[in-house]
Amino acid sequence: MSGVSQARADRLTGELASGGPGGSSLDGLLVTNLVNVEYLTGFTGTNGACLLTPERRVFLTDFRYAERAAEIEGWEVEIVSGQWLIGLAGHLEGRVGFEDDRVTVRTANELRDAAERVELVEAGGLVERLRRVKDADEVERVAAAAAMTDQLYELLIERGLSGQTEADVDRWLTRWMREQGAEPSFPPIVASGPNGASPHAEPGSREIGRGELVTIDMGIKLDSYCSDCTRTFATGAEADLDTLSREIYEITLRANEAGLAAVKAGAVGAEVDEVARAVIRDAGYGENFGHGLGHGVGLEIHEAPRLGPSSKDELMAGEVVTVEPGIYVSGATGVRIEDMVLTGENGIARNFSSIPKSLTFVP
Amino acid sequence: MSGVSQARADRLTGELASGGPGGSSLDGLLVTNLVNVEYLTGFTGTNGACLLTPERRVFLTDFRYAERAAEIEGWEVEIVSGQWLIGLAGHLEGRVGFEDDRVTVRTANELRDAAERVELVEAGGLVERLRRVKDADEVERVAAAAAMTDQLYELLIERGLSGQTEADVDRWLTRWMREQGAEPSFPPIVASGPNGASPHAEPGSREIGRGELVTIDMGIKLDSYCSDCTRTFATGAEADLDTLSREIYEITLRANEAGLAAVKAGAVGAEVDEVARAVIRDAGYGENFGHGLGHGVGLEIHEAPRLGPSSKDELMAGEVVTVEPGIYVSGATGVRIEDMVLTGENGIARNFSSIPKSLTFVP
Repeated sequence: MSGVSQARADRLTGELASGGPGGSSLDGLLVTNLVNVEYLTGFTGTNGACLLTPERRVFLTDFRYAERAAEIEGWEVEIVSGQWLIGLAGHLEGRVGFEDDRVTVRTANELRDAAERVELVEAGGLVERLRRVKDADEVERVAAAAAMTDQLYELLIERGLSGQTEADVDRWLTRWMREQGAEPSFPPIVASGPNGASPHAEPGSREIGRGELVTIDMGIKLDSYCSDCTRTFATGAEADLDTLSREIYEITLRANEAGLAAVKAGAVGAEVDEVARAVIRDAGYGENFGHGLGHGVGLEIHEAPRLGPSSKDELMAGEVVTVEPGIYVSGATGVRIEDMVLTGENGIARNFSSIPKSLTFVP
Repeated sequence: MSGVSQARADRLTGELASGGPGGSSLDGLLVTNLVNVEYLTGFTGTNGACLLTPERRVFLTDFRYAERAAEIEGWEVEIVSGQWLIGLAGHLEGRVGFEDDRVTVRTANELRDAAERVELVEAGGLVERLRRVKDADEVERVAAAAAMTDQLYELLIERGLSGQTEADVDRWLTRWMREQGAEPSFPPIVASGPNGASPHAEPGSREIGRGELVTIDMGIKLDSYCSDCTRTFATGAEADLDTLSREIYEITLRANEAGLAAVKAGAVGAEVDEVARAVIRDAGYGENFGHGLGHGVGLEIHEAPRLGPSSKDELMAGEVVTVEPGIYVSGATGVRIEDMVLTGENGIARNFSSIPKSLTFVP
């Protein structure tokens, strides 16, 4: 439970002065989103909350977690019972921000009733913004999850794909992750042949043939942090693969590389997206790339920032983002190629995805 | 996707006349809690909502689920895009209830902004109340999940416990469930020796010895429905077990049986709890039973009604509830015995837990 740097709470305290609606100031912030609670304290139980003011840092949980809570450094611990909102109310004073994007209407109403001296103000997203830039501990964990994912890709390439159903491959991937003491960071996608034309295909009973493309999109959650990587493989011998599949693979790979080259601090999400999208559009497949280019990864598989046509997010050094263009030809085939990278001041500081991207033929 | 009886939506429509705050009437109800959406439509995707009025039943989801949505019977389907709240707003009119116990403050505010002609009123819990009484299809699914759980208990008894760590047993249980195409309905509890004194112990590295009690609390989620069953076993030979363990086992079993005998339509949650609790209190262990007696089970592992000292829930025939008294002696040992049953007019209509409750010695 220890090991979470106090620097995170320090940074959050620094945000209070302008963290309210319209940049107004806050006297404190109530953090109830468990992912944000884990980020601040390292706590991984199912019930906990943080109250942070410039003077105090209080972590609240119930009796089940009393022992684990005692290991949290830098936070006063308060053990609360069923009606913990009422226990909390005594701590609140002034303008207190809450996560309006997570707290339910009912809970907010109960909290308002219990804490009369308090003005509750909407302040969702403050911790999420801090979480964008990863510290050294987080980068290490993301890297470990990515390294394990790459190891699994290597085993998959050796093992081959044809002759198995998509669901078989999915089960094998998931079982391997669990045997390592990890979990999938999302249900793996195994989309073969025409199924590859659907970006969100669910692995099904289709038997993977020879001479077709298979898109594998998978990630591992290890030690709370996620990885995300997509590769599209060809099955069978080189001579088996059709021209369309080869063509869209080559274009998608160029789009992936162009997108990666555009990632750097200061670039805006929509700009990076456009660099990759232009490659696909110029090749005549603009209508066949119907999703955004990428997203942040960390404690959650999808987090800020976003790379997409409408994203105004300005990249900062130290963010972990994916770059995952795709071309989807309905009824025929599809390709997606995704790397997960660390942003740097002048470009990519590190590419976590080491599996080669030249078209790879597997059994 | 088909097969969900329209009777559920019909019953819900009947609740609109008095479903608002203070029994006021509603012109419609917006259902966004995915468990409730599944209950009404059978839909199991990650994005869907229902809008129900006396005249119309509209199911909303995004393009990914267009094919699956088409299989839903009795609901008009509307495919919405990213900002689906805005698509929804056109359907709303009059006093529309929403699930204030699930909808976030931010979403409610966005919805209010988008739907100007509408008065949004707090109506959380309406579908949850309907879900208390199970229909025949639900009872069958709960029974199937419970039967699979009992099968696993039988394998566990054969396989034995001593010499393995709690975590080993947990992994074996979970793997078996997944091999059957099911999932744990919650992470199994395997609490041996002194760890049995903690009702919510997490399986750890302690090696299970001989001559001690081991509490196993597990359930299976199969075909969307949960089961829940606890048994406490003794390891080794009969002569190995201490007197305290035998005594609290016998008392807990009597409490379990007394609680079961008190379950019937019309009984109030607190009354049933008290019947079982009195057995433990009269035996001198009143301080050692620190949780409620039981809870409803269905699509969720914990749902209404609640059996506990402060519960005012009045039982109805056709509910699935657990009866799970326990005695926890800190630093020494613990026992919990839990059955899952179907309530009837004059008592239990069916006990889903068939594993014998007399103290069982396993290797």
